[in-house]
Amino acid sequence: MQSFRSLVQQFEERIIALDLFPQQPANLYDPCRYLLSLGGKRVRPAVCLMANELFTDIEECTWHAALAIELFHNFTLIHDDIMDKAPLRRGFETIHSKYGLTAGILGGDAMSIYAYQHLSFVEVNFKKVLEVFNTTAIQVCDGQQIDMDFEQRNDVSSEEYIDMISLKTSVLLAASMKIGALIADASADNCDKLYEFGKNLGIAFQLQDDYLDAFGKTSKLGKQQGGDIIANKKTYLYIQALQAANETQRNEIAAWVLSNNYEEKVPAMLRLFQSTDAHIKCRNAVELYSHKAFEKLKEINVPEDKKGQLYLLAKELLNREQ
Amino acid sequence: MQSFRSLVQQFEERIIALDLFPQQPANLYDPCRYLLSLGGKRVRPAVCLMANELFTDIEECTWHAALAIELFHNFTLIHDDIMDKAPLRRGFETIHSKYGLTAGILGGDAMSIYAYQHLSFVEVNFKKVLEVFNTTAIQVCDGQQIDMDFEQRNDVSSEEYIDMISLKTSVLLAASMKIGALIADASADNCDKLYEFGKNLGIAFQLQDDYLDAFGKTSKLGKQQGGDIIANKKTYLYIQALQAANETQRNEIAAWVLSNNYEEKVPAMLRLFQSTDAHIKCRNAVELYSHKAFEKLKEINVPEDKKGQLYLLAKELLNREQ
Repeated sequence: MQSFRSLVQQFEERIIALDLFPQQPANLYDPCRYLLSLGGKRVRPAVCLMANELFTDIEECTWHAALAIELFHNFTLIHDDIMDKAPLRRGFETIHSKYGLTAGILGGDAMSIYAYQHLSFVEVNFKKVLEVFNTTAIQVCDGQQIDMDFEQRNDVSSEEYIDMISLKTSVLLAASMKIGALIADASADNCDKLYEFGKNLGIAFQLQDDYLDAFGKTSKLGKQQGGDIIANKKTYLYIQALQAANETQRNEIAAWVLSNNYEEKVPAMLRLFQSTDAHIKCRNAVELYSHKAFEKLKEINVPEDKKGQLYLLAKELLNREQ
Repeated sequence: MQSFRSLVQQFEERIIALDLFPQQPANLYDPCRYLLSLGGKRVRPAVCLMANELFTDIEECTWHAALAIELFHNFTLIHDDIMDKAPLRRGFETIHSKYGLTAGILGGDAMSIYAYQHLSFVEVNFKKVLEVFNTTAIQVCDGQQIDMDFEQRNDVSSEEYIDMISLKTSVLLAASMKIGALIADASADNCDKLYEFGKNLGIAFQLQDDYLDAFGKTSKLGKQQGGDIIANKKTYLYIQALQAANETQRNEIAAWVLSNNYEEKVPAMLRLFQSTDAHIKCRNAVELYSHKAFEKLKEINVPEDKKGQLYLLAKELLNREQ
C-alpha cells in the first residue's frame, strides 16, 4: 500500500507530464495552468487512488479518474472564488483577480469539461462512476447555493449547517473514494462504506476547520486567527453560540457582528463561543463524525493491514493543528 | 419522417413534463427554469432527433441526448451573456441581469452538469457519443475565447473568422446530428457526413446572419438593423471590407468605428461594405458553405426520400429573411 505522500507526488508528476491543456487559445488555458500549478493538498485524487488500492493494483485509468476529480474540484474553486469575491487562493491571486472575470468563468467551464474527458478514460463500471460523479457535481452546486443563501439568514440550524457542508465539501471526498472502489470493481457494500467513511471524514474535517480558525495556534494556522469571525461567517461555532446564548449574550453577538473593530471583536467572540459552550459542542461534533468515519472504515471488508494508509491519513487530517 | 416543427413541439412538451430541475435550492434552479422557458428555436435538439430518424425510430434515450445538447447550449448562452455583458436574451432579461452574477455562474454550471446527466441515458455507442460531446464542448469554449480575443485585434483574416464561428457555433450543430446518428448506430461514414453537413450548414447560417444584420429588412429582422455595425463587431462583412479597402476607404472605416453617430454610421458602413464588394463576398461565402452542406447531405447513404425534412429545414434556415 502506498502512502498518501507518495501518491500525491506521483500525481503531481503526472499533472506535469500530461501537459493537460493545449497552448492555444492562451487566454483560456494559461489561467487553467496557473491555478493547477498552485498545488493544494490533492486529498481528493489521493483518496480515490488509495480506495482503489484497497482492492487492486492502481491502473492507468484510475489516475485519469483521480485527475478528473481534481479538475472538477479546481473548477468549483475558480467559480466559488468569483462568487465569494475572494482575492487570494492558496496564498496567490485568484484567476479572476489575476486574469479577469471572463478568464475565471470560461477557464472554470473548460476545466469542468476536461474533467469529464479524463473521467471517460474509465473502463470498469464506467456508467456507475459517471452517475456518482454527476450526482456529486450537482450536490456540490446545491451546497454552494445553500451556503450563499445562509449569508442572508440568521436562523440556520446546526443540522442545516451540517447538511450544507456535507453537500459543499464532503460528498466530493466521499465520491472520490467510491469512484476509486468502483473502478476496482469492489462490492456495492464496500463502495457504500467507503463513501460513508469519506463523507463523515469530510464533515469532521470541516467542523475541525471551523474550530481551528477560531482556536488554532496562529503560528501553525498559516492564516489570520479568527478570519471567520472577522468575515461574520456562519460557522458551526457561531450557530451553536447563537442557539445557546441567553438574551445578553445574543445581544452581544449581534453587536459584534456589526463591529469592524477586529482587535476587540475576535477575542470577544472567542469568549462568547466559550461562555456558550459552543467550543465544546464543536469539539464533540468533530469527535462524533470522526468516530462515524472510523467505524465505517473498520467495517470495510478487506484485510485490516490494507487500511493502514487510510487510517493514517484520516488521523493526520483530523489531528492537525493547522 | 417527422417535420422540424412537430419534433420541436414534442421536445417542448417533454421539457415541461420532465420537470428538469428540483424545486430547491430555489435561488439556483428558478433562474435555470426561467431561461429554458424563454424558448429559442431548438434547432440543435431537433436536428439530433432528425438525424436519428434517418436511420431508426426515435427512442426514449435520443430525447435525453437532444435535451443534453439543448441544456449544454443554454449553459453556454448564460455564461456568454455574462462575458458579453448582454442585458437581453431572446428579448427578455438575461439571467445575470435578472438574478445577479452568482445565479448566472452557478446556474450555468448546474445546467452543464444536468446536460451530462441526460446524456448518460444514452445506451447505444455511449462512449463515442460522450467523446463527440466532450470534444465539441471544448471547441465551443475555445471558440468563445477566440471570439473575445478578436475584439482586441484588427488583423483577423476571413479564414480565422470562419474557424472561429465554426468552433463557436457550427460544431455543436454538427455534433447534434452526429450524436443522433451514433445513437441510431449509423455507419461511421454516415455519421461523419452528417457532421460535415451540420458544420457547413452552421457556417453558412452564421455568415447569412452577418449579412442579414446589415442588409436584412428591418421589419422582418425583429431587431435593430446594423446592430453589429453599432457594436463594432468584426463580422465577415467588416473583415472583407477592411481587407479589400483602399487607403481612403480604410481611413473611413477607422473613423466610423470610433463614431457614436449611429444614424450616419450605419448607412455609411453599409455603403463601404458595398463599395468594397464585401456584401458580394459574404453572399458568395454563404453560397459556398450552403453548397458544401447540401453536397454532404446528398452523399449520406439512406434513401433520398428520408432526407426530405432535413433538406426543408436547411433551406428554411438559409433562405430566411430574418
